[in-house]
Amino acid sequence: MQKVNIAAKLATFNDHWQPRIVGELNGQHVKLVKLDGEFVWHHHADEDELFLVLDGHLTIHLRDHVVELDAGEFFIVPRGVEHKPVAAREAHVLLLEPATTLNTGNVRNDLTVDHPARI
Amino acid sequence: MQKVNIAAKLATFNDHWQPRIVGELNGQHVKLVKLDGEFVWHHHADEDELFLVLDGHLTIHLRDHVVELDAGEFFIVPRGVEHKPVAAREAHVLLLEPATTLNTGNVRNDLTVDHPARI
Repeated sequence: MQKVNIAAKLATFNDHWQPRIVGELNGQHVKLVKLDGEFVWHHHADEDELFLVLDGHLTIHLRDHVVELDAGEFFIVPRGVEHKPVAAREAHVLLLEPATTLNTGNVRNDLTVDHPARI
Repeated sequence: MQKVNIAAKLATFNDHWQPRIVGELNGQHVKLVKLDGEFVWHHHADEDELFLVLDGHLTIHLRDHVVELDAGEFFIVPRGVEHKPVAAREAHVLLLEPATTLNTGNVRNDLTVDHPARI
């Protein structure tokens, strides 16, 4: 039962593609992550995933189109939909997704984070 | 499958304490609301509720303490916990809560919104 200051949480880490858990409610995790570069194509079979850009610009590639997000914009990737996040420069993003969500979805590689840290 | 620009959505309404649904995922609603003044004490028996301040300042009264939120800060009110949001001046807030959530929780009065609009 403590408030969360998003900027203060973001200031505690500098690595990329390593989501941190900053809140939990109704079985969902609120996460913060810094993105830079290109992620991997993946999907989440049973989980919808929200990307809210806090700073910078995020491109979410879908198989049939591309979503461009500036700060203050969010997009919900429905379960089962393949997507690939790309940030040409560092972007700060708030994620909302079920606590069961693996960042790389159906893919396992060097970017997979099995147990995101709570900060 | 469309992105949401939060500022653009907020520009479409000016009333207070009337949440709008702007997204849905995993049985949760993302809502935007403009607050001004004092709400009613209430709780949600089965729903945790997240308040993220986008603009302005929000005071969430709990029975044993008070949480002060500036823009960029959020607080999760756990299910069952009585709370009373107060905004001394207009504040813009993003809410995240289960789709089943009634804004006034266990209370029914003039502020109750049974069917929030989707915008």
